[in-house]
Amino acid sequence: MKHDCIITLTTDFGYRDPFVGIMKGVMLNINPSVTVVDITHAISPQNILEAALAIEMSFESFPHKTIHIVVVDPGVGSSRRHIIVTTSRYLFIGPDNGVFSLIYQSPLEDLSVVHITSEHYFLSQKSSTFHGRDIFAPVAAWLSRGIEVSKFGDVITDYVRIPLPVPTLKAQDMLEGEVVYIDRFGNATTNIKIHHMNNLYGSDHIDHPTVLFKGNKVPFKHYYSEAEATGLYSLINSFGYLELFVYRGNASLDFAIRIGDKVSVVVN
Amino acid sequence: MKHDCIITLTTDFGYRDPFVGIMKGVMLNINPSVTVVDITHAISPQNILEAALAIEMSFESFPHKTIHIVVVDPGVGSSRRHIIVTTSRYLFIGPDNGVFSLIYQSPLEDLSVVHITSEHYFLSQKSSTFHGRDIFAPVAAWLSRGIEVSKFGDVITDYVRIPLPVPTLKAQDMLEGEVVYIDRFGNATTNIKIHHMNNLYGSDHIDHPTVLFKGNKVPFKHYYSEAEATGLYSLINSFGYLELFVYRGNASLDFAIRIGDKVSVVVN
Amino acid sequence: MKHDCIITLTTDFGYRDPFVGIMKGVMLNINPSVTVVDITHAISPQNILEAALAIEMSFESFPHKTIHIVVVDPGVGSSRRHIIVTTSRYLFIGPDNGVFSLIYQSPLEDLSVVHITSEHYFLSQKSSTFHGRDIFAPVAAWLSRGIEVSKFGDVITDYVRIPLPVPTLKAQDMLEGEVVYIDRFGNATTNIKIHHMNNLYGSDHIDHPTVLFKGNKVPFKHYYSEAEATGLYSLINSFGYLELFVYRGNASLDFAIRIGDKVSVVVN
Repeated sequence: MKHDCIITLTTDFGYRDPFVGIMKGVMLNINPSVTVVDITHAISPQNILEAALAIEMSFESFPHKTIHIVVVDPGVGSSRRHIIVTTSRYLFIGPDNGVFSLIYQSPLEDLSVVHITSEHYFLSQKSSTFHGRDIFAPVAAWLSRGIEVSKFGDVITDYVRIPLPVPTLKAQDMLEGEVVYIDRFGNATTNIKIHHMNNLYGSDHIDHPTVLFKGNKVPFKHYYSEAEATGLYSLINSFGYLELFVYRGNASLDFAIRIGDKVSVVVN
Repeated sequence: MKHDCIITLTTDFGYRDPFVGIMKGVMLNINPSVTVVDITHAISPQNILEAALAIEMSFESFPHKTIHIVVVDPGVGSSRRHIIVTTSRYLFIGPDNGVFSLIYQSPLEDLSVVHITSEHYFLSQKSSTFHGRDIFAPVAAWLSRGIEVSKFGDVITDYVRIPLPVPTLKAQDMLEGEVVYIDRFGNATTNIKIHHMNNLYGSDHIDHPTVLFKGNKVPFKHYYSEAEATGLYSLINSFGYLELFVYRGNASLDFAIRIGDKVSVVVN
Repeated sequence: MKHDCIITLTTDFGYRDPFVGIMKGVMLNINPSVTVVDITHAISPQNILEAALAIEMSFESFPHKTIHIVVVDPGVGSSRRHIIVTTSRYLFIGPDNGVFSLIYQSPLEDLSVVHITSEHYFLSQKSSTFHGRDIFAPVAAWLSRGIEVSKFGDVITDYVRIPLPVPTLKAQDMLEGEVVYIDRFGNATTNIKIHHMNNLYGSDHIDHPTVLFKGNKVPFKHYYSEAEATGLYSLINSFGYLELFVYRGNASLDFAIRIGDKVSVVVN
């Protein structure tokens, strides 16, 4: 069979409560031919930045026209707005709290943001505490059935962006970034992208950049197994970011690496 | 494509072992056009009441004709019966150990219970320890293919109900309930429903009920963000139950709230 | 609708990071009609033996032609090969590090192994750290669209097998095995299969084998609820292995059972 439309879910709902299953039920009720894919439900409770990073890492792997729902929503039930972010290739639905800040910076074309106000697309038993079930799931499902975005509300331009940690040029030959994500294997992703390093070095063929962490040089490799089995190493990871790792080990545990720790790249 | 039939899963199998994936394989083998949706697999091991609450919160969000499997089954392999609960809108499959006690109390019409005895619908390599794979999954899959419920066994009326904690009227103006569920965010759901409160107050417009927990008044709000960032509050949650919460915090951790703790509502 | 093809996933990616969702996006992009089923993503990081056991327990429950992906890959990015294992009924895709060692021993017919070398089936932004996204997912999706296995590379015979713990005959009347898997409920699966016990006893009707653990006899039962509520018991579990359990308890916690602990069967 052909999947008419895909909806993905990125939430902080966890895997213990029935909340995610309920959202899927609501969507299948409105559009029986939708396919729902979980990206993750283990965003740290109410951590907007973590959700912003997760959806940035993921959205482009999905087919065009995929609808990405993100629900990390400390302000649920308040006057905080609900939005649809439309682009030429993907749609995004979630609270207007900055969770799409990295999408706004991405090179997606024709980006515009709609404030969802058409309540007749919400579940009738709308509650004030579970907008995932009552607003985001049904709006996504109606969108997946082909309802035009303009039917859900008006375009806004004052949507919320959260301040994102960006690497800064500390000297002409030194870029300072920080750890922004630590994965299951203890690998520590920084906010330094390959293009930042290319700019610093004035070249897109950097073989041996000098990476510094807590005053020590961190040898640069091209893949995990190039490293020795102990010691901290760095590489450009599969999302294009500079990452600290321990081969067959856990960098975060072994070297006490935490979100926010500074990492520098210098021209040697 | 159109999903011909949806089967949901609510179990205490967890996410570490391959048990859930195996059940899905069995169902797809019998009915290649079924769609399986996980409600949760993180019910505390062998906790029948928790499973009863999870399926009550979830079942109505799914399309009519959905088949809900619940497998929380401390007595697996014993003489404990397997049952199908049929109603006008949904089917339920699981062990006859009280896991459907809240379904029996719901306003679903035409409820009847069938004792599953037709072993030719079971997997041939039936084991005595994994009825999810060998009995519940294949029975659900055959049901989803349109086999009539009556083919699986006879109607019974002596199905098992577990004692459920219900709120009690301690005085003409005081209702005492208890915490029955704590979710990932630390929100504590009680067994006091909105209609219990309406009855107590003699009104369906209760703006400021007096809620008591451990001798203290718990201010009543309409949504989370109406509350200050510290302190315990209460509201009617998205499932119609009175709930204790901390805004942007974790009520269960911050106020040491546990399953079974008493919560009262009084007419002030 | 009819599911044209099923792809399963068994990984050590966990449930916190977006890696699994990303692989699903890649597959749906290439084959919009594929159905992806999670077996587990909670294999202990880089534990090849645990993954080998999980896929052995699971693969046969799925329809013929199912494609099973296993990604537990400490050597990602090294010269370690990627392989497709073809058999008459199932296909398997993963790293050539021994993760399919139990499949090689199974009675599947027409088993052969292909070394994946046709890079035009990989994602173009191939990275050196996320072969799940860049190699295994797209190769599985192209296979599911009907591309012949021979198009992906040449047959090899020197594929890697890891040493598997096998029960040994310590005396003519004594077989010694060990604990190889502990599930969520604390049940401890050994590597002693029912056929090993039949061989030892010279019979396929063993009612009361003598099972020994740490010097004590472990009473043998046929299902969990036959046992008393305390004490350690044994039975043949739903995968055909001798297992140690506590009825309504947790054998691993209550009796400090660990992977590798010895378990014996003797003819009494």
